[in-house]
Amino acid sequence: MPSVYLDNNATTPVAPEVAEAMWPYLHEEFGNASSVHEFGQRAREAVERARAQVAALINAQPAEIVFTSGGTESDNLAVLGAVEAARHRSIAGRKHVISTPIEHPAVLYAARMLERRQVDLTYLPMGRGGVVDLADVQRALRTETILISVMLANNEIGTLQPIAEIGRLARERHTVCHTDAVQAVGKVPVDVEKLGVDLLSLSAHKLYGPKGVGALYARKGTRLEPLMHGGHHERDRRPGTENVPGIVGLGAAAELAAQRLEEDTRRIAALRDRLQAGILERVEGVRVNGDAAHRQPNTLNVSFQGVKGEAVVMALDLEGVACSTGSACASGSVEPSHVLTAIGLSPDEARGSIRLSLGRYNTEADVEAALEAIPSVVKRLRALSPRYAHAGTD
Amino acid sequence: MPSVYLDNNATTPVAPEVAEAMWPYLHEEFGNASSVHEFGQRAREAVERARAQVAALINAQPAEIVFTSGGTESDNLAVLGAVEAARHRSIAGRKHVISTPIEHPAVLYAARMLERRQVDLTYLPMGRGGVVDLADVQRALRTETILISVMLANNEIGTLQPIAEIGRLARERHTVCHTDAVQAVGKVPVDVEKLGVDLLSLSAHKLYGPKGVGALYARKGTRLEPLMHGGHHERDRRPGTENVPGIVGLGAAAELAAQRLEEDTRRIAALRDRLQAGILERVEGVRVNGDAAHRQPNTLNVSFQGVKGEAVVMALDLEGVACSTGSACASGSVEPSHVLTAIGLSPDEARGSIRLSLGRYNTEADVEAALEAIPSVVKRLRALSPRYAHAGTD
Repeated sequence: MPSVYLDNNATTPVAPEVAEAMWPYLHEEFGNASSVHEFGQRAREAVERARAQVAALINAQPAEIVFTSGGTESDNLAVLGAVEAARHRSIAGRKHVISTPIEHPAVLYAARMLERRQVDLTYLPMGRGGVVDLADVQRALRTETILISVMLANNEIGTLQPIAEIGRLARERHTVCHTDAVQAVGKVPVDVEKLGVDLLSLSAHKLYGPKGVGALYARKGTRLEPLMHGGHHERDRRPGTENVPGIVGLGAAAELAAQRLEEDTRRIAALRDRLQAGILERVEGVRVNGDAAHRQPNTLNVSFQGVKGEAVVMALDLEGVACSTGSACASGSVEPSHVLTAIGLSPDEARGSIRLSLGRYNTEADVEAALEAIPSVVKRLRALSPRYAHAGTD
Repeated sequence: MPSVYLDNNATTPVAPEVAEAMWPYLHEEFGNASSVHEFGQRAREAVERARAQVAALINAQPAEIVFTSGGTESDNLAVLGAVEAARHRSIAGRKHVISTPIEHPAVLYAARMLERRQVDLTYLPMGRGGVVDLADVQRALRTETILISVMLANNEIGTLQPIAEIGRLARERHTVCHTDAVQAVGKVPVDVEKLGVDLLSLSAHKLYGPKGVGALYARKGTRLEPLMHGGHHERDRRPGTENVPGIVGLGAAAELAAQRLEEDTRRIAALRDRLQAGILERVEGVRVNGDAAHRQPNTLNVSFQGVKGEAVVMALDLEGVACSTGSACASGSVEPSHVLTAIGLSPDEARGSIRLSLGRYNTEADVEAALEAIPSVVKRLRALSPRYAHAGTD
């Protein structure tokens, strides 16, 4: 088992406090939260407590929180649900949606589904920094624009988008604004009032909660067509027996994140910066991807000239350091990262990249271990690479 | 806390063996099953082990199991996904689907959504027994019928449908056959080969597993359009980071169900029969709903003349006996049960009904306690009911 986990953007360890909070709901507290008897009512109380905890973390009202099965469902419910609910807002039969080419596949493929349903999509252009330019948003907005969906923090390169400003533009145009905040919540302060968004996706397992549960914030009054049909759960926005232990875990994770955010962020940013500086110092032919001035504190994406990121990840795994080439959701794909190519990297540069993402449970020793392993792994792989030898930069 | 839980069709206690199996995956084994490093690979192995366990319970191939967030999602994926995938099979632009009026809301409302999308629906007629007549299926089948969706066991009255025979008719007509087996799996033997179905929904929390996870069996070759879009998880049929602890719990629950099915069924049926006989013996003006010859072994639905089921449930709750008026998914609804009205009960009869559903952890003492409480509760409520006094049957 590798001992150094630097893949916290793929998933985070469950906080011990979260697992403890969930345990009773995997045991004696097994009621269905929709049952009227006491078993049910106790489950209902637990669900509503968690709803308040999640709402508090992002400065929302509890009634604005819809529990889902995770970030992918939240994103799909937001994007497909908002567009479906706005079917009367088309202009001459046309509807228009704005997004970016660096969204998580959950938003990206939901958007492609919309294109198949005759919705016009504008993907905002991306510069090398991986940050949206507000002038491009202004240019893209049309009378028939019904939704803008831009992620808060990118999962691969960690860049933070100017969502508060995008939210303001959306409000002026009466356009629904969604942000996929799956990678941001628990890592940077997220306040739905300050952001001015109507819809915001989050996922428990990215913030030291369990897998299989997430939430969609839906501002009061935001119309949303459900993805699924069934019982009247979650105010008719998401049917199905509530995942009580998962929801309790998300609530506990949210409360913990609220308490620890400042301290965690400071500590993690320092570790990440040290990791970045150490790599730049010890390895030649490296570039850091994404605008460092607008980047969440835990993420570091680097391209190594002349090697395959996949080979680096596998070699590091054998050395006991776990990281990734990019999104776990895209792993196994032969295509280079859509994020890195969208910000202008060549396919070769994109394929030479790895993502190191830190978290609450990482230590200085973890960073030291990674800084021990990475240079030697890259050197070894470059020695095997005819292309790098040919380029002659080592 | 009430001590007698007779609402196992709403949800079941998590088996201790299941909770124990899940625990490591809420702790040190936190990897994302899509990550290539060792943390990820260990999670992947756990998911695939669970897939094999679920497949074994229903005599399927592991690759035919799609993990979902629960029964509602499985039903929606089956019904909406099969019809969407068959969009080229319409005749002169029409598509036709057959279902029943006693389906769970997840199928019923998915079917209504299809109607909004210009799909013709035939709801098979229901007799007082609550069992489908095969002659009606034959009559309903058309050239353009692309899906038959009939539940295996009804959640409110427990009636079992002749799915093997329906599956045979569907196969003859090259029609996709789905069965919502959420209430059947773990309670009666379920074998997808004997049933001959293409799609079968199941849910973990109905078989002593955790809430928030389920599966859809999709026979090899069955075309299915996903409900959600995103990563390439579950062979492109269901995106989103796998709910590893939940999936492990479902797997453990499935294995346990396979081991215990025969013994549990025999024991639970005896308890249920004793409960039924006891109620009929001690209370006048009672009728048992649903064909007793085609009923799953754990369910008892009874109508008490002259009382409201809701009042009975609440009074029993105070006496420490938890049961329900019908589906927990419909609780809070002012409408009488759609199942009971579909099988011909008057709204008053339907409103006078309660569902007692037994499970693995019920004992003879539970049945005795219920038989102690029910007659006195019904008597007390009837004494308060002018209508029942007027009817003069007590």
